[in-house]
Order: sequence, then structure tokens, then C-alpha cells
Amino acid sequence: MLRQSIHELVIGTRGRGFYELTREVEEVLRNGGITTGLATLHLRHTSASLLIQENADPEVRRDLERFFARLVPDGDSLFRHTAEGDDDMPAHVRTALTAVNLSIPVEEGRLALGTWQGIYLWEHRAQAHRRRVTVHLLGE
Amino acid sequence: MLRQSIHELVIGTRGRGFYELTREVEEVLRNGGITTGLATLHLRHTSASLLIQENADPEVRRDLERFFARLVPDGDSLFRHTAEGDDDMPAHVRTALTAVNLSIPVEEGRLALGTWQGIYLWEHRAQAHRRRVTVHLLGE
Amino acid sequence: MLRQSIHELVIGTRGRGFYELTREVEEVLRNGGITTGLATLHLRHTSASLLIQENADPEVRRDLERFFARLVPDGDSLFRHTAEGDDDMPAHVRTALTAVNLSIPVEEGRLALGTWQGIYLWEHRAQAHRRRVTVHLLGE
Repeated sequence: MLRQSIHELVIGTRGRGFYELTREVEEVLRNGGITTGLATLHLRHTSASLLIQENADPEVRRDLERFFARLVPDGDSLFRHTAEGDDDMPAHVRTALTAVNLSIPVEEGRLALGTWQGIYLWEHRAQAHRRRVTVHLLGE
Repeated sequence: MLRQSIHELVIGTRGRGFYELTREVEEVLRNGGITTGLATLHLRHTSASLLIQENADPEVRRDLERFFARLVPDGDSLFRHTAEGDDDMPAHVRTALTAVNLSIPVEEGRLALGTWQGIYLWEHRAQAHRRRVTVHLLGE
Repeated sequence: MLRQSIHELVIGTRGRGFYELTREVEEVLRNGGITTGLATLHLRHTSASLLIQENADPEVRRDLERFFARLVPDGDSLFRHTAEGDDDMPAHVRTALTAVNLSIPVEEGRLALGTWQGIYLWEHRAQAHRRRVTVHLLGE
């Protein structure tokens, strides 16, 4: 019989960068008792993202950070919404270019991720933040 | 007992820009009688997006528009698919850079959005369009 | 009564470009016996994407490819993760800028896609790869 449950993860960030939460999500799966099903993650913020990316060479995440810093430069004179500083609007643009929702099937009690896939919270603001991720579990 | 239902929203746009549909989606929740569950939105078009972004300062949306207009310029000579005008191919690229699906948990009869999150249809074409969003509700 | 099932699609790519899998996903729907529900696709890789885009004029996909090749150039000296060649890190960036998850409602036994929407695997690596897509079906 299919059932559902909702859980919350809170991630304390220490400024811009990647924070892996694969293990935390798999712990939620165990707590929810779901062996086969679907896990949906939603980040309740507009200046950070959820990203599935390579979990092996950390240089991949540093290169992603370098690329996005060049693509959406802090302090760009294009932006008028600058109330919270040079990194305010770039954080919103980075979020628009990536995602705040992820939907991942669950098989044999584990997320159906590829060998090199990890789930990351990508903090786009320079300062530390407390970020909330709501997890919806469906399955049996 | 879990149940599901499917609904359709039709949004008339007046050209490029953001059209909030948070209230319309929450009305669908009420009509579907879902208190706890998952709402999935799918936009049936390839030249507009669904985006969760800040609902407070409207300057954020104007800055997003300015950034994307610079990143994917109308009339760029790179593009060969120009049948419907200078904004045709940029609309497809903007859609590829963002999303046409959103999955949002539902708690206590409301979307589990953050305080500053609103759901927007982002019209990328210069002219008015009639846009269809299919909403799948799951829950109890 | 709602039920679920999980399926796997394997797509052999012949290097960078778009590979349509709409028909394969609709065959999964038929095999799963779902008439009304939700299909969730997850690509288990970090250097290819799942994209819903125009299925009519193939020039749209060629223009998307041209745009991304200019936005994220192969061999960019910005990148340090170059172990697998000039297209290695650009493939990760393209994946971050697009998506590896899709969630699509199912109505009358068909995906609720718009007239011009097709589902594509977008291979970002220059060489051929074997790509795995996990499909979660929910419905009745």
C-alpha cells in the first residue's frame, strides 16, 4: 500500500559553495521506511539551489563556482536590486539558472543516483545562511 | 488513503515578463481537497518557463529579465531558427536554461514555499500568448 | 487504487547532440499500465541532461547546441578539471545549467506534453556513451 510522509532538513551554510546532503536524504528515506518510491526535495529559498553533480573530484565543484562567478559577476552594474549587497542579485540569477526542486526515484531503500552523482545544496550568498529543504516521500 | 487528480490552468500573457500563479495553484489545491501531498506543475510550451522566485521586490524580476536579455540577445546572428522573429530562438534558449516542471510538497493545505517564494510563469515571447499548465495533485 | 512501478531506459549516444526518447517513455507508460498519473524521469549522469524542447524544426536543437557551445566553450582555460579532455568540465556546466530530472503528468495514457514538446537526452560529451534513465510511474 502506497503511503507518503513529509520531512524537513535544515542545512547551515558557511557562505558560497557546495554542501552535500546525499547522506541526510538517505537517512530521511530510512526514517520514512520507504524501500521503493519517489523522493521530492524542495528548497524554500530564492538565493540557493539544489544540484545533482559529481561527487568524486572536488575540482568539478570549484570549476562550477568559477564558471558561475564569471557568468553572473558580483556587483554587475546591470543590477538594480542591490539592497543586500553585491552578491544579492547574482544569487537570484544563479538560482534561476539552476533549480530548487529535485525528484529522485527510490529503489531498494536507496536513491536511484548514478555512481558519480551527489545531491548538493549550492549556497549562492557570501554569508552564512540557515537553509530549509522540505522532503516529500512517496512509496512503500 | 492517497488519491490523485489532474487540473489545468490557462494563463493569458501580454508578452515577455513574469506572471504570478501562486494563488491559482493554491486554489487548485483547495479544489482538489489535498491537505498533505505533492503538487507537480508542467508547462506545455517550449518558449516560456515556470520559475520559483522572489515575490517581494519586483526589481528582482526586472533584473532577471535584464540579465537574460543580455545573456541571450534577441536577433543574435548565431541563430538560424528565426521563422517567428528575433525573439523566437532566444525564447527556446531561455526555456532550456530554466525549467518547465516544478514539484512542490503540500503541507496543511498550502504549498511548502518559503516566505519569499512565488511561482511565476515567465513568458519569453514578445507577443501575448495563451499558456497551459497541467497540475498533478497527489495526497490526502 | 494508486500504484507505482520503476523502469529503466538505456540510451546509447553517438556523442554530443539530442536523442529523442518521447516514444520510449510512452512505451514505458503502456507497459506500466498507467492511464492517469505522474511520470518522473531521472538521468543517472552528471555530463548529460534531460530536456523538453521543440520537436518540429531540428534547427532549434542545432541552435541550442550552438548557443551552449559559445556559452561554455570546450577547452576554456578557466577550468582545472580537465582529466577527461576539453569537453569534460563543459559537460558538467551544461548539466548544471539544464536538468537531470523531469516530472510529467499522464492523462488518457499519454504524457501531458504540448503539441511541440519532445523529451530529449542531451549528450554533452564528444564521445559515445551509454546513458541510464530511471523512470518512476505513479497512477492508476
